Amino acid sequence: MIERIAILGTGLLGTSVGLALHAAGYKGAIVGWNRSADQAGLAKQMGAIDCIASDPLQCARDNQVVLLAMPIYATLDFMEKLACVLGPEHLVTDVGSTKGQISAAAGRLFNTPERAAFLPGHPMAGKERGGAALGDADLFRGAVWLFTDDPGWKRSPRSAELVKGWRAWVEAMGSKTLDLDPARHDELVGWVSHLPQFVATALSALLEEEVGDAPELKDVGGRGLREMTRLGASPYSMWRDIAYTNTEAVQTALHALEQRLAHLRENLRTPELRDEFEKANQFRRDERIS
Amino acid sequence: MIERIAILGTGLLGTSVGLALHAAGYKGAIVGWNRSADQAGLAKQMGAIDCIASDPLQCARDNQVVLLAMPIYATLDFMEKLACVLGPEHLVTDVGSTKGQISAAAGRLFNTPERAAFLPGHPMAGKERGGAALGDADLFRGAVWLFTDDPGWKRSPRSAELVKGWRAWVEAMGSKTLDLDPARHDELVGWVSHLPQFVATALSALLEEEVGDAPELKDVGGRGLREMTRLGASPYSMWRDIAYTNTEAVQTALHALEQRLAHLRENLRTPELRDEFEKANQFRRDERIS
Repeated sequence: MIERIAILGTGLLGTSVGLALHAAGYKGAIVGWNRSADQAGLAKQMGAIDCIASDPLQCARDNQVVLLAMPIYATLDFMEKLACVLGPEHLVTDVGSTKGQISAAAGRLFNTPERAAFLPGHPMAGKERGGAALGDADLFRGAVWLFTDDPGWKRSPRSAELVKGWRAWVEAMGSKTLDLDPARHDELVGWVSHLPQFVATALSALLEEEVGDAPELKDVGGRGLREMTRLGASPYSMWRDIAYTNTEAVQTALHALEQRLAHLRENLRTPELRDEFEKANQFRRDERIS
Repeated sequence: MIERIAILGTGLLGTSVGLALHAAGYKGAIVGWNRSADQAGLAKQMGAIDCIASDPLQCARDNQVVLLAMPIYATLDFMEKLACVLGPEHLVTDVGSTKGQISAAAGRLFNTPERAAFLPGHPMAGKERGGAALGDADLFRGAVWLFTDDPGWKRSPRSAELVKGWRAWVEAMGSKTLDLDPARHDELVGWVSHLPQFVATALSALLEEEVGDAPELKDVGGRGLREMTRLGASPYSMWRDIAYTNTEAVQTALHALEQRLAHLRENLRTPELRDEFEKANQFRRDERIS
């Protein structure tokens, strides 16, 4: 039923969605737009999109599904602009990493019988570096694609059908879908996604200052160091918006970790260290997170 | 020239050395001993050792090279015991993760023309879980094997030959060797190995308390979470000795990271966050540590 998709933002995620849709057998049209033309050109060259749009609002109007694949504040800006120009024949969805503000805007601007549908989404997939060039048809395979849809929204039957259709394509791209309340989403990703990122950033920045010039660094660093600093390569441009839109949860998590590290530091030679290792071992028991 | 090797401690590292030596074409004898007999039995069953010794001191005396593959304090205990029963026809070497105390003991107890040689070693290889069952002939392939040998030690020519011979086997097992001063070694691994481990432990323990029971955990956790907590599975039994023998360096590193995290937490909405991401990006530039 979905035959025309617009991808606004052809960076890593937008390009990967285009490639994954094609790989999953999607036969309709995919039109792409990107603020900087070279990323859109690259996405087209890679086969992720069929053609490039010059006007994103017109492009949205001409398609059924509009995927916003851009940082959170840019997504919120587009939501304001799109709400007035689209109708119940359209579905807008996104890939933003925090869902509180986006879900609130969706409820305010979309999801009435006269308006377009908005389905807030968040694929738990990515790479530490962005850009169309890293686009990957398999990026979403085995990943979880979270939605924070509100069952209270009153949509037209046509809108509801588009939502159902997009969820089916997400599953066809290889993802498992999971529905969460937006507040619970932001709290949970604050712990399991944002905290690990900010720890990797702080650790990498600290090591850059302390041993960045050490000639032995390349030799002495092992797998543990590589893994614990891989996310240090993540771009500020994306994480700034996450820091702004999930500030309280991230602050709570960072503060708790600071206290935990201080406790460990004060107990390097006491039996408390054993308790800490055992609790950490427990987190990794049964490979619950692998 | 080396034809008889004793491996005292047939856990992950001892068993892997036995397997790697055989894979590298070592044709001599390898005798193993372990405090708990089942680990020694497993190492023999896996082909890492040819036979099992019942008395570790007698076993050391009967061989040319004695590899101590056990936690640091156990290594220090064995160094005391072995110093009196071995002579210049023997080389003792180890795999301990801190080198200050072990190198000091080596200078005090070994490395005179009348005594056995001791070569303090530290392969930068391992897994987050221990035990003979995980033994792996390729564990040292592509890794760096650090030595903190003191050029001032006056060894017999026979001892010096054994040291040269063992270094050649380490390279045959696929490792690059690198020589460091023991104090520099402990400072550097404090930053690039011990700090990442203790951060992973604290992060895993914190997440166990905060979200360990969350039913969505398995779905929502992505690659970043898996990597940042993999070392959370590391055993206390090994890390206790590291915490005890490199306390000051680890305390310094942990304290610096606590301050860094607090700075980041206080600047989630200021341009300072950009500086921190850029410094972290710099650490990962040119894949210097991959």
